[in-house]
Amino acid sequence: MSLHYGRRLMSIPGPSVIPERVLNAMHQPSPNIYEGALVDLTETLFPDLKTVARTRGALAIYVANGHGAWEAAITNTLSKGDKVLVLGTGCFAISWGEWGKTTGIEPQVLDFGMSSPADPTKLEEALRADKTHDYKAIFVTQTDTASSVKNDIPALRKAIDASGHPALFMVDCIASLGCERFEMDAWGVDLMVAGCQKGLMVPPGLSFVFANDRALAARKTADLATSYWDWVPRMNPAGFYQNFAGTAPTHHLLGLREALDMLVHEEGVEQAWARQELFGKAIWAAVDAWGADGGDLTMNVRDPASRSRVVTCIKTSNGNGTKIRRWCEDIAGLTLGIGLGMAPEGSPEWHNAFRIGHMGHLNVPMVMGTLGTIDSALKALAISHGNGALEAASQVISEV
Amino acid sequence: MSLHYGRRLMSIPGPSVIPERVLNAMHQPSPNIYEGALVDLTETLFPDLKTVARTRGALAIYVANGHGAWEAAITNTLSKGDKVLVLGTGCFAISWGEWGKTTGIEPQVLDFGMSSPADPTKLEEALRADKTHDYKAIFVTQTDTASSVKNDIPALRKAIDASGHPALFMVDCIASLGCERFEMDAWGVDLMVAGCQKGLMVPPGLSFVFANDRALAARKTADLATSYWDWVPRMNPAGFYQNFAGTAPTHHLLGLREALDMLVHEEGVEQAWARQELFGKAIWAAVDAWGADGGDLTMNVRDPASRSRVVTCIKTSNGNGTKIRRWCEDIAGLTLGIGLGMAPEGSPEWHNAFRIGHMGHLNVPMVMGTLGTIDSALKALAISHGNGALEAASQVISEV
Amino acid sequence: MSLHYGRRLMSIPGPSVIPERVLNAMHQPSPNIYEGALVDLTETLFPDLKTVARTRGALAIYVANGHGAWEAAITNTLSKGDKVLVLGTGCFAISWGEWGKTTGIEPQVLDFGMSSPADPTKLEEALRADKTHDYKAIFVTQTDTASSVKNDIPALRKAIDASGHPALFMVDCIASLGCERFEMDAWGVDLMVAGCQKGLMVPPGLSFVFANDRALAARKTADLATSYWDWVPRMNPAGFYQNFAGTAPTHHLLGLREALDMLVHEEGVEQAWARQELFGKAIWAAVDAWGADGGDLTMNVRDPASRSRVVTCIKTSNGNGTKIRRWCEDIAGLTLGIGLGMAPEGSPEWHNAFRIGHMGHLNVPMVMGTLGTIDSALKALAISHGNGALEAASQVISEV
Amino acid sequence: MSLHYGRRLMSIPGPSVIPERVLNAMHQPSPNIYEGALVDLTETLFPDLKTVARTRGALAIYVANGHGAWEAAITNTLSKGDKVLVLGTGCFAISWGEWGKTTGIEPQVLDFGMSSPADPTKLEEALRADKTHDYKAIFVTQTDTASSVKNDIPALRKAIDASGHPALFMVDCIASLGCERFEMDAWGVDLMVAGCQKGLMVPPGLSFVFANDRALAARKTADLATSYWDWVPRMNPAGFYQNFAGTAPTHHLLGLREALDMLVHEEGVEQAWARQELFGKAIWAAVDAWGADGGDLTMNVRDPASRSRVVTCIKTSNGNGTKIRRWCEDIAGLTLGIGLGMAPEGSPEWHNAFRIGHMGHLNVPMVMGTLGTIDSALKALAISHGNGALEAASQVISEV
Repeated sequence: MSLHYGRRLMSIPGPSVIPERVLNAMHQPSPNIYEGALVDLTETLFPDLKTVARTRGALAIYVANGHGAWEAAITNTLSKGDKVLVLGTGCFAISWGEWGKTTGIEPQVLDFGMSSPADPTKLEEALRADKTHDYKAIFVTQTDTASSVKNDIPALRKAIDASGHPALFMVDCIASLGCERFEMDAWGVDLMVAGCQKGLMVPPGLSFVFANDRALAARKTADLATSYWDWVPRMNPAGFYQNFAGTAPTHHLLGLREALDMLVHEEGVEQAWARQELFGKAIWAAVDAWGADGGDLTMNVRDPASRSRVVTCIKTSNGNGTKIRRWCEDIAGLTLGIGLGMAPEGSPEWHNAFRIGHMGHLNVPMVMGTLGTIDSALKALAISHGNGALEAASQVISEV
Repeated sequence: MSLHYGRRLMSIPGPSVIPERVLNAMHQPSPNIYEGALVDLTETLFPDLKTVARTRGALAIYVANGHGAWEAAITNTLSKGDKVLVLGTGCFAISWGEWGKTTGIEPQVLDFGMSSPADPTKLEEALRADKTHDYKAIFVTQTDTASSVKNDIPALRKAIDASGHPALFMVDCIASLGCERFEMDAWGVDLMVAGCQKGLMVPPGLSFVFANDRALAARKTADLATSYWDWVPRMNPAGFYQNFAGTAPTHHLLGLREALDMLVHEEGVEQAWARQELFGKAIWAAVDAWGADGGDLTMNVRDPASRSRVVTCIKTSNGNGTKIRRWCEDIAGLTLGIGLGMAPEGSPEWHNAFRIGHMGHLNVPMVMGTLGTIDSALKALAISHGNGALEAASQVISEV
Repeated sequence: MSLHYGRRLMSIPGPSVIPERVLNAMHQPSPNIYEGALVDLTETLFPDLKTVARTRGALAIYVANGHGAWEAAITNTLSKGDKVLVLGTGCFAISWGEWGKTTGIEPQVLDFGMSSPADPTKLEEALRADKTHDYKAIFVTQTDTASSVKNDIPALRKAIDASGHPALFMVDCIASLGCERFEMDAWGVDLMVAGCQKGLMVPPGLSFVFANDRALAARKTADLATSYWDWVPRMNPAGFYQNFAGTAPTHHLLGLREALDMLVHEEGVEQAWARQELFGKAIWAAVDAWGADGGDLTMNVRDPASRSRVVTCIKTSNGNGTKIRRWCEDIAGLTLGIGLGMAPEGSPEWHNAFRIGHMGHLNVPMVMGTLGTIDSALKALAISHGNGALEAASQVISEV
Repeated sequence: MSLHYGRRLMSIPGPSVIPERVLNAMHQPSPNIYEGALVDLTETLFPDLKTVARTRGALAIYVANGHGAWEAAITNTLSKGDKVLVLGTGCFAISWGEWGKTTGIEPQVLDFGMSSPADPTKLEEALRADKTHDYKAIFVTQTDTASSVKNDIPALRKAIDASGHPALFMVDCIASLGCERFEMDAWGVDLMVAGCQKGLMVPPGLSFVFANDRALAARKTADLATSYWDWVPRMNPAGFYQNFAGTAPTHHLLGLREALDMLVHEEGVEQAWARQELFGKAIWAAVDAWGADGGDLTMNVRDPASRSRVVTCIKTSNGNGTKIRRWCEDIAGLTLGIGLGMAPEGSPEWHNAFRIGHMGHLNVPMVMGTLGTIDSALKALAISHGNGALEAASQVISEV
């Protein structure tokens, strides 16, 4: 018998749950793109997005996914042959560096594996070793969506400062923006990339590059920018269409306006961070309990301080990761994320990981519904697990 | 801090959660009401609704809420001064009888209190005592939404048959149709009333009266029917508008078509009943666990056989019912049902009951999310409760 | 070849075009019906609906179509055997009277045919002749949707006053409310019925009865009201559910709130009346031009003062009415209204009428699009018509 | 008084009117992007898009607007320093060439002004003159959205063939795809770019590059492609995410599926072309009539054969273009397109042009509503115009 005949819950690490209000805001006839309401609305997006990013820097919005924002970040700041130091803590910073190879940059990876954050000491060492300042930029993710490692951005900045190295500090917040505390200016981040489909609660299709004065200055010497990626006209548009290097993404703008109303003007960014933090802890408490007493579930990231607040990667044995996902999807009405990068796709080990996405539009019934469904799956599949996981989570939540 | 910034979950005993597909099906321009697609679509609703009700009888659809369907049932079958035997097991059969007083019928209540089902033996006695067959009809609910008592309709029918009494057996399935097993023809129900906003998953605004041959025969002598309620033209329309005694409820018809596609043609009615049954048991398991060891939560209905599969009324002390509801609503993002009829509204005792609605569009994350949120509330409010409630529920679900 | 592959235009006399904003407002999850936003919203509907009706009287809202409102009007004010004088100017006042027969009232029709308004002089005569004041009420439509006759409500009131007759003056504004000037209090109307699906721009499913003190007083002696129709608890609810005699029509209330925002708070009722007046004149100018020089189209109502501002009934020969409708529907993407009541359905003459609905959510492209499409049909079907119809209409509009 | 209180009509040259069905199809929760329905759906888009483009070639879909597709076309086929011959017939081919300068290509414009199509003879001459075959590509628009010039793509191909020049023939169909006859393979077009927001009836956010074998071969030597624009993995994805170089544009894919159902599987592409052709002729007939007898409106493009079927640029004197647009927008509820490129923005002459967009989701009431509203504006503003424009248009349509 199947029990999924209700409102399906998506607990994947993005695209995240879209608020009904955002979908409604996008259910609109085509607007005029030359003047009027859409043009006015677009202007209001910039300050609100900067509020979310905690920056007074500049912002370019791209009709592109996050990989497009990576390319924009690279091409506006770097030149052919530039070296980049990549801090590998999962899949995505490494992919970002690889992505840039077609533009001619040369990434070098300092790899911290799939379960640990970047070590500031090793970063400092690497930078000190680069006496000729060949590294023009450092790439890192705040949250690596694959490993669910969270990097300590302020600590990495301190390491850079300690080394005296001038490389641009470039952070990928695609998974985390709006969910995990991030203070671009206070933390000394030079450039940050993000997308609309995770903490910003809009269907995929827009991405963002935030740049401070150091990053803007780099643009003057960078020789890679093409007309589409060039952020100069986007940041200083002579006409509305230059904001988007062509036709505006009308419906995404409508959706983003509604999402920012919710995040910035109703809940508030600080409160959203705190909510996500609490939900993260509730989920960890459940997973830790499942894993106790020889239970088959293990947190991929041991140290709570290094665990992402928006995604949790869980390891199992015996292909149980996939079995749990299948039961939740087919029988129960819950979609969980596949493991990513923990093992070669298709290998038996690949089935030993899954991820819970817990980002953005999220409340108690959604968190407890996700955990309760996994608990049902463990029992249904007779997978070994410790007791009390759900109450461990509800206990954390109750301490709100 | 508030944690409700996600997709709010409504676990009230109706109007129930509307599937996104149904809302989309209703998001349509006005159709032509004289010919074409809407006229064709309407014809398909009748057989599918009868499939849900398990009847080959006749059906009238009303633009009205459930109270309108009560009036239609009364006025099409009864006459001024007719006596009706009402089986009181909460609020709603009694209200149905009261409702009819303005038409001139005379309800007499056989009251079984707020926590027990109608006793077939007592019904048989009452009918045998009515040697002159003054009772023209018997009113009962399958599920009383207030008390969450479930009546044993086949057993009551047997009692009627045993008594040899000719009164029409009229059942209110407003809360339960599509969720609890109900077999109109096989069980010998003469007339049944239902609404669209519970198990049928459409916003309130339509109600239904199903009638078998005995009920149709009663129409011939009944003298109360007015033009609006008269089911004769509705059941035998000379033109499309007669289906609805005037303008068709266009968007409700569109929504109902989609909902019936889901219930009848995709999931199947038998499977929906089984799903609801399992979810009911999961919820009872949790409430029983919370109430163990002196916990403050008690099932209003002791005997599982007499518990509704679509709503659960829970009793507390110290006004905790309202406190739990408030925490869930304001902090967590879950709306629970108020207690109804368990104590005078506004009295301190009124706050000692609440209800979980679990009808219709419902899956595992919704059930476990509801229970998990209540568990968080109990802990946050330091309300005494037994352990293991959530896992007791997930255990039940795992045995699917 | 078909040319209908665009946004279909409905120019039928109701259900009228629903604004996209109203559909969006209805695209919502089920709300809490016990407290909170929906309860607050509902309270705001009453004053705004009274603003539209220009009354300080009382208002009851019914989950019912317009025929239900007819029944509510009858049962709250009249008693078995009461005589009613019906002013026949098409189909609907006569139907209203017929509708009441099942309740025991006795309608007597003063028939003015299918193309003329009620004559105040004849009304005065009829009332003077009723020396025993047997008529307890007078039924009339402001606009008869079938004939497109508009009655002169203030003139009829004057006739009643001149006769000194105490009958209640009851007006059906189902087609016209919000579109044609109507001043319930200033014009001395005692009771008015309306629906939500025409000038109020919401899908069918709600209807309204407005009552002044005289009508309210009649309630005290009327003996027909049943629990569902009784307006007393609806007008003086002890609890929210009494507003609707049971479950609130949640999504209709959401839609109506949006529609009233548009009509009352954005455009303004006076402005809406003026807009509809101008569009009516534009349409008449076109039809008059098509009919000139032996053209086959004729206005059903000759005198502009007696023409409805919301619907226009047009007569043809040779079944051309249906041919025009078919071409517009099948080839062009425009749905026109069928003729109603002008000839027996199915007879050859029945095909010699059609109607243009022009009520509610209407602007210049919609009016000119309707007329332009009909003009194309006339040419495509080689139906004789005068020249210059479209420019006659655009000329009227240009004089805004 | 304002008359715009109805369903606003957008007759701008894109983003075009989005069908309600497409908006509904996009009103969906986030789907799973790793497996299941969305992945399956995406595969079906490719053959249908190729059916629209009449090609068996390859297709890459970009999360980008049309300017992004320009960049993709350039970077996948050309190398730094490559010369491109641009056929200027308005704004957009010239912009395409300019756009490429940042990548290092060198556009050379053969300019045919703002009102004439590219002359095949001159193209042939230019190509013959390029004896060293420096031109690696020829850029041209099928319809230039600014001027509303339509180029004769087959004739240009013949000129290229006659010259024996090997340059790639690259056509921008952003405005015209799905509306104007276009046969990529039969006409010998090597590469074509398009967007989703015009004839494909989806909100802006996706663009397309179609490539035949010659274009694919050029990829092997082209040295400009970056990871985001590189079409190789997009055309030969190892995993689903490679189709979009990262996160899939979930909601656009849902919308596009619905739009292609309408265009390809319901109406059919040939029929859509014919419909658009007829509507174009109807609009031209109206404009020609307005311009007769000294009227102030003139078609920008004289020769019907060179007029776009999707947009019509109209010239006026005395700033009447803007006045007409303003009246239609503010008073009537119709939005027309501004003039583009006909005069410097802000200059008095700039106000002497406007455009009617007539692409995509379009039927008779929309066309006649657009024209009828403009006719009202001409009369309201006392702008000199010839008579009979509307009937000239309805005459054309009647000959369907």
